[in-house]
Amino acid sequence: MRYMMIVTYNGRGFYGFQRQREKNTIQDKLEDALEILFKQHIETVASGRTDAMVSAYNQPVHFDIDREIDTKKFMHSMNGILPNTIKIKFVVPTEHHARFSAKKKTYLYKMYISDIDLPIYNALRLDNKIDIDAMKEFANMLIGEHDFAGFCAKGGMTKTTVRTIYNIEFKQGVEEHTLNFYITGNGFLYKMVRNIVGTMIEIGMHRLDLNELKNTLFSTYRSTYTAKPEHLYLYDVKYE
Amino acid sequence: MRYMMIVTYNGRGFYGFQRQREKNTIQDKLEDALEILFKQHIETVASGRTDAMVSAYNQPVHFDIDREIDTKKFMHSMNGILPNTIKIKFVVPTEHHARFSAKKKTYLYKMYISDIDLPIYNALRLDNKIDIDAMKEFANMLIGEHDFAGFCAKGGMTKTTVRTIYNIEFKQGVEEHTLNFYITGNGFLYKMVRNIVGTMIEIGMHRLDLNELKNTLFSTYRSTYTAKPEHLYLYDVKYE
Repeated sequence: MRYMMIVTYNGRGFYGFQRQREKNTIQDKLEDALEILFKQHIETVASGRTDAMVSAYNQPVHFDIDREIDTKKFMHSMNGILPNTIKIKFVVPTEHHARFSAKKKTYLYKMYISDIDLPIYNALRLDNKIDIDAMKEFANMLIGEHDFAGFCAKGGMTKTTVRTIYNIEFKQGVEEHTLNFYITGNGFLYKMVRNIVGTMIEIGMHRLDLNELKNTLFSTYRSTYTAKPEHLYLYDVKYE
Repeated sequence: MRYMMIVTYNGRGFYGFQRQREKNTIQDKLEDALEILFKQHIETVASGRTDAMVSAYNQPVHFDIDREIDTKKFMHSMNGILPNTIKIKFVVPTEHHARFSAKKKTYLYKMYISDIDLPIYNALRLDNKIDIDAMKEFANMLIGEHDFAGFCAKGGMTKTTVRTIYNIEFKQGVEEHTLNFYITGNGFLYKMVRNIVGTMIEIGMHRLDLNELKNTLFSTYRSTYTAKPEHLYLYDVKYE
């Protein structure tokens, strides 16, 4: 039997999703909790890793087990064992593979615009002088199928750096000055979202020329500014 | 000369606004910073106290000084001295008294609706079964001039417990399931907003009967549930 858990977590206290030797990770906490419940080690597979400090609204994580489980009871028990910063939102039986069956992923990057740091806002501050139109123009250039090698940090292990971006959205929150950036694609390379956000900010600050970039974007461009992880959220993953 | 600072702070690490012997408060931090800048003790007056853990989007604070100041430079220096959790958004010369001239205040209480704790949300969780319509009906009853004695914690020092509520608003944020509660009035008694929110939740959970309350609300009712301070924000104060 395979089950898919939809997990939400505040990643600020963790070294990312993936299990690492002697480091505090989301996967460790999930597998520790599963082991407590089932008295055996159970491997989990997420839709993808998230970096240290990155949070998730909805991270699908599957696991295989030799019996049928009462999903309601299971969820309740897991949420009792897990730390407050990781919770399971729901659990369903599935035939999907959390990673290989994922069709679309959406990330959210939280920003706000102010010349003063606003201590209530958990988001990346942008100066008032930033050129939002230029940022949006750049964002629109990303839509479609492109080679995103220039936005991929070393350390990625993918065969191809071609990805398709389906949709980009900017939304103002109910809080003044907030700017949420949503990006949906068929998949993302290592640090790709953070490099896209970094490049977008460089363009907004006119430290990078959009027109120059237009020619090189998908060939020789190498992003140099990786936006901070703590304002990035895995927002949604869609299957079939 | 009198100046009004508009201060924003994350109150979670503080014992409230008001100076207290040997406790960490917003007023202490502001007056310490002023003393560093002006080499003399300068008293500050806020639009009102906020309790321990309560934050502010906009808290007006005035002070009097014997000279004219360059407000831009002043703000920059103050923000350099203040901790990251307290920032000044702007400063203007004023003839208003931060407290006595305040005409309208708006507080925001942040909630979200989910049967599961969502670790990314900095807000009070309400169960899915909560009756939002009953909450809204109760909220509407508050609008107008009433004696709010039943919502006032002991320890308040006001002559009258009559206050006027001008407006109440519920807004969903861009985040799913969020419910922001805004309340605007000519002033609020000690813990009044938190008692109103607490009562509203009791009604939403059908632990308190709205119809029964209708008869006693402004006479014999005594609220018993004070909503947690960490989700309350002083949102806006209007003068003149």
